[in-house]
Parts: sequence; structure tokens; C-alpha cells
Amino acid sequence: MPAVIPADSVGIVAPQTVHFAEPLTLECTRTLPSFDIVYETYGELNALRDNAVLICHALSGHHHAAGYHSMSDSKPGWWDECIGPGKVIDTRKFFVVSLNNLGGCNGSTGPSSLNPETGQNYGPDFPMVTVKDWVSVQALLADHLLIEQWAAVVGGSLGGMQVLQWAIDYPARIRHAVVIASAPKLSAQNIAFNEVARQSIISDPDFHGGRYYQYDTYPKRGLILARMVGHITYLSEEAMKQKFGRDLRSGQFMYGFDVEFQVESYLRHQGETFSRNFDANTYLLMTKALDYFDPAREYENDLARTMAQAQCRFLVISFTTDWRFPPERSREIVDALMQEGKDVVFADVDAPQGHDSFLMAIPRYTDIFGAYMQGIPTAGALAGDHDAS
Amino acid sequence: MPAVIPADSVGIVAPQTVHFAEPLTLECTRTLPSFDIVYETYGELNALRDNAVLICHALSGHHHAAGYHSMSDSKPGWWDECIGPGKVIDTRKFFVVSLNNLGGCNGSTGPSSLNPETGQNYGPDFPMVTVKDWVSVQALLADHLLIEQWAAVVGGSLGGMQVLQWAIDYPARIRHAVVIASAPKLSAQNIAFNEVARQSIISDPDFHGGRYYQYDTYPKRGLILARMVGHITYLSEEAMKQKFGRDLRSGQFMYGFDVEFQVESYLRHQGETFSRNFDANTYLLMTKALDYFDPAREYENDLARTMAQAQCRFLVISFTTDWRFPPERSREIVDALMQEGKDVVFADVDAPQGHDSFLMAIPRYTDIFGAYMQGIPTAGALAGDHDAS
Repeated sequence: MPAVIPADSVGIVAPQTVHFAEPLTLECTRTLPSFDIVYETYGELNALRDNAVLICHALSGHHHAAGYHSMSDSKPGWWDECIGPGKVIDTRKFFVVSLNNLGGCNGSTGPSSLNPETGQNYGPDFPMVTVKDWVSVQALLADHLLIEQWAAVVGGSLGGMQVLQWAIDYPARIRHAVVIASAPKLSAQNIAFNEVARQSIISDPDFHGGRYYQYDTYPKRGLILARMVGHITYLSEEAMKQKFGRDLRSGQFMYGFDVEFQVESYLRHQGETFSRNFDANTYLLMTKALDYFDPAREYENDLARTMAQAQCRFLVISFTTDWRFPPERSREIVDALMQEGKDVVFADVDAPQGHDSFLMAIPRYTDIFGAYMQGIPTAGALAGDHDAS
Repeated sequence: MPAVIPADSVGIVAPQTVHFAEPLTLECTRTLPSFDIVYETYGELNALRDNAVLICHALSGHHHAAGYHSMSDSKPGWWDECIGPGKVIDTRKFFVVSLNNLGGCNGSTGPSSLNPETGQNYGPDFPMVTVKDWVSVQALLADHLLIEQWAAVVGGSLGGMQVLQWAIDYPARIRHAVVIASAPKLSAQNIAFNEVARQSIISDPDFHGGRYYQYDTYPKRGLILARMVGHITYLSEEAMKQKFGRDLRSGQFMYGFDVEFQVESYLRHQGETFSRNFDANTYLLMTKALDYFDPAREYENDLARTMAQAQCRFLVISFTTDWRFPPERSREIVDALMQEGKDVVFADVDAPQGHDSFLMAIPRYTDIFGAYMQGIPTAGALAGDHDAS
């Protein structure tokens, strides 16, 4: 636990919840009668309301992106490396908004929430949500906060897909799109890994068809497996080699099925921790949202035509060793944007850490990302900041 | 089913079983009192007994490598593409021996066999077996068949590891080593995938600590998951893209958890079929044998010093899109051999099919492999065949 909150932290933050009482019709054609969204904000909205930045979270993320909920928190929010005073997303300049997406399990309405119509948890009755749905809800949150236009919408991985969808669906409401370690749609291999994760959960006897809440249990084994396989795809082969190699926990072969190699210990621990903190039904929804994401489907599978909707400027960042969403996937986005004459900066950052690089304070990455964010003009910024962008 | 057996098939073949009555002490220090090995042979052993080729199988392989067991078989043996009259491993020239390794589930003694001491299936009491153990048993089989020296020992993937071990442990008994799509040891990522497969099986409630036979069940869900995740690593991203892309089974999004994408359907089918035909305890043993394989451990982690033991010639083949055992892993073997002045031919074959390429009749691959095999001198071969090697 932090005895002292670091000087470059946003400090102690408190989540807020907004209730949306109007029915929301989703892409799957089903309607939610009402729902809650939990969010946090860091920094101050300026008088012209033109310095707001939206953070879109990835598969297992949530609204708590920066700072601490209490002095006894052992860790800050999930993107604290990049959000704070003087950091890449500088809270002295920007008003940062971070939410838990619809269907989540960290406070926003999701499968583990009570269905007002039945008084039971939604469970498998919660409707399927898509990236497009999330962006619609984020637009409602922007309305609620009286934010007409985001200075920037920012996200990595599945978060980057939400950024792309913002640029396509609400071109007038976003000035800058920052798309990190993402892809314009999943590959067959990406879908295959998601399917393994889903089948791990669904085939766990404790899943009970998604109604495990009523049995006072949850598909722990399935969640552990899902996270283990997911985690392998988040790290590069090189990162795993550097981190664990073939190191043995006891220094010798044990000829048994307990943990022998350090990498086994690490994966089991990751899975175990995750399984205690994440709702299985939400995990299923998130993987499906990933699979469905394919904005070009609405534009005859022409990504350039799709991105032609956008009016904002783009920063696209990939990482050389990311094999979940390799640099080529980012280049597809960049090519489509360039074909349409859009303003795009592309950086393929040489980093050994794989997909998870986007969460880390890797200097080559944060330098580029930070310089771009500094260059975004806002009314509240110093005059000098207006030049770069 | 084949109405007519193809002309280039070895035809109808029958497995044979040899019982080894002497106790065998394994690398894990435990002793098996006796055991059976099932094997098949194709072609004829010549008078000088110098034309024998040993086939080493991979993770889920077995003794039935070529031909048919009956006219009603729908498929031939697992490497029929490469073994037969006029094929790469030409049965008009070679006497081919293919066995099911110790610990297997296709006829050789393994966890599903009855333990003579208890009258029950061995289950989790079956000792851990290593690549080195398998090679020792293969040497006993060679003794039984009165084969003093193999013209060649051949294998892909885990099979290739057995070939390496042959060259190291029995240098006088092998003239040619053919190591395909293999590696000198697993990487941390390889081990990580194996660990997911193992945890899938072990955490399945139907595993019953490995004693599922007594409960008249088996860890079907775990085996399906293990095979699904394994299968992803056998195919290249490119192969998956070409085979399935993002094709939808029904042509539209269903917004549910049933199969939507063709790749999901394929993986579930692969897992389902595999789970009905493979013993879970054997799968666990095979993945551990993979993890443990690291012959350089006996030689101060110096692969060159390790390979210095070998006296045979080598053909090493890798495939450009194999991401389970990428070409660099084969190059490590080749570099070690060259450092010791060994005779090695290396081919990195440009093929989009990934790791599974080694099982397929890919012309660039079979041309090189076939030419090498043709060049191996044997007493029974035509004079012209002696020139190339």
C-alpha cells in the first residue's frame, strides 16, 4: 500500500454512477429498459468544455483507470502509467473521463446486475452488447456531462476499437482518435482463442447455463483457463522467454503435475487472481463484442469507405512484438485512413513486451503518445501547446 | 471408405504387439515391471538388414502411420501422405517401423492399461515418461526386430525430438536423422500452452484425479479444450484465414453463444472428435515429455556439445509459418551441428500451413524430403541410389 500518494498521481478518486432511465435498443435488437454506468473523472473540465478525453477500456478493464480509491489501495488504476499530472494524458491539461462499459462487472449494469423485471441477476438473459452499443452509451454519458465534443477518444486493444467506432459513428463529436495495439476486426485466430476461452467457461459445470449466481458459485475453473490462454496472447514469446525462460521452481524436474516451470506458476496465479475478480458472463460478452467488431461490414467490407466517415485526426500505435494484434493490423487502419486523405500519425513501436505494451510506460511509446496529446489544442492549454497539432 | 485401396498405398496392414518382460527403469527413477509395445511395419527388411526406417510419432500420433486396417477404413494411417510405394519414405526401398510410444493409448502400455500389480488401470500411477525413455524402448524394439542400425530415424514435432535423442544416445545405431518442424527444447510459450491443456484436463470434475476409468467416465470437456488450444498452435494464422476467415455459419450474427463463425465450428469438431479417441492421462504424459525435453541439460546446456555425440547425417526441415516450432528453433539445431562439423542439410520450406505442414504432401517439402531419402544408400537399393548421399 502507498504510504504516500505519488506526486504525479491523480490522487484519491471516487467513482460516480449515472442512471439512464430511458430504454436503450441495442444492435442485437433487444432493449434494456434502463441501466447504470459507473465512471470516474480526473482533471478539470475547462470553461469552453473542449478539453475532455474519453478513455475506452479493453477486455478486462473498467472505470478505475488512474489514482487510488483509498490510502490503503495496493495498486492504482489500470492505466495510471499514462494518466496523471505531467503524464502522457496530462490531467493538468485534460479532463479525463473513464467508464465501465455496459455489460461490465465493475458497477455498470451487466449480467451480474439485478434485472428489475425479475428481481434476479440478469445472467444469460443480459442482451449481447457490441462496440457500437458501447459507443452509443458513451455518447449518452458525454451528453450527461455536457461534453459536446471530445478533445480525444483514447483506447488500447478492444478500447481502440471503440475509438474507431467513435470516429465512424460520431464524426462531429471527436477531434482526435488514439488507437493503440488494435485492429479493424478480429482474425480467425483471434476468434479461435476467444472461442477456447468461452468454451472453458461454458463447459464448467459451475456455470449452470450462466445462472451460477443462484447457486452461490461461479465457473472458477473456466475463468482460470480463459485467463491463462488469454494471458499467453498478451505477452510476446520474447517477453515470456526473458521473464521465465525454462526456469524451474525447485531447480529440478519433479516428474509430476504440480507446478515445475516458473511460467506455469505465473499463469496459474494470473488465472486464479482474475477468477476471483471478474464475472464470467461479462467475460463472455466482452469476447463476443470483440468477435463481432467489424465496422466495414456496414460499408460493403470496404475499410477505406468506412473510415471516410471520420473527420478527426488519428494517432495509431502498434508494437513490434504484439502477436494478438500485430503491426500489420494497425497498418490496415492507417492505409484505409491515408487512402481517404485523413490526417494520421502512425508509430510502430519497437518493444519486446507484446500486446500488453500499451499498458506500460515504455519510453519510445509514451514519448510519441505524450507529444501527440500535448499537441492537441484546448482553450485551457498554454499558447505554446497549440502549435504542434 | 475406400472402395479400392490406392496403388501407392502400403495396403492392408496389421499391428503387432511385443511384450517386454524385463523391468524397465525410467528417467524419473521409477520402474515398470513389464510392458507391451504395439507397432506396424511396411515394406521388407533386406538381407543385410540395413534398410530399416523408424518413424517417431508426435503428441497424438500412434503406430498406424500408413495403409488401412480394413477395407472399410475411411482414412489411412496418419502419415500415409509420406509412406508408401513410390512415396517420400518409399516402401519398395525401406522397411518402415512405426510404433505407439510407451505411455500411449493405442495399444502400447500406458495409463489406460491394467496395472498387473493392482488389476486396475494405471491411471495417475503410471510413471512419467520422457523422450529419452521412449528412445530406450525404441532401441529394445530394434533389438527385437534384429535391427542393429537404422538407415534413418524420422519424425516431426515431438517425433523430431526423439530423432535428436537417437542421434545423441545411440550414435552407432542411426545413419540418418530426419528432424522435421521440431525444436531442441520448448520455449516458455510452448510450456505455457501445454500447461493450459493440462489444467483443462486436470480441473475437469470428470478427471477424478486421473482415476476416471473407475467412474466409467473421462474428462471430455477438458480434452476438448486441450485439443482446441493445441489445434490453434498447429495452424498458422494465414492458414486459418484462408480456411475460415471471418465466415459465418449462418451468414449473419446470431448474438448468442452457439457456433457463429466457421472457425468455432471447426475447433469444436476437432476437440469433440479427439476427446472420443484419446486418453486424457496419455495426453498429460505427452505434454510433460515435451516440456522435459532438453537434451543439452546433460551437457551443461551446450547444444553443440550435445550434438557432438552424433555420428549420423542430418536432414532438418522447418516451415516458414510454423509458429509452434518456428524456423529459428530448427536453426538452433543446425547451428549446433555445423559448429561440430556434422553433415547437415537444412531446408526452411515456404508453406502457409503452419506446424501441421509436416503431415502434408506439400511439393516443396516432399521433393526435398524424398530426394534425401532416395539418396540414403541401402544394400537393397538400385546402384543409382547410392550417389546422392
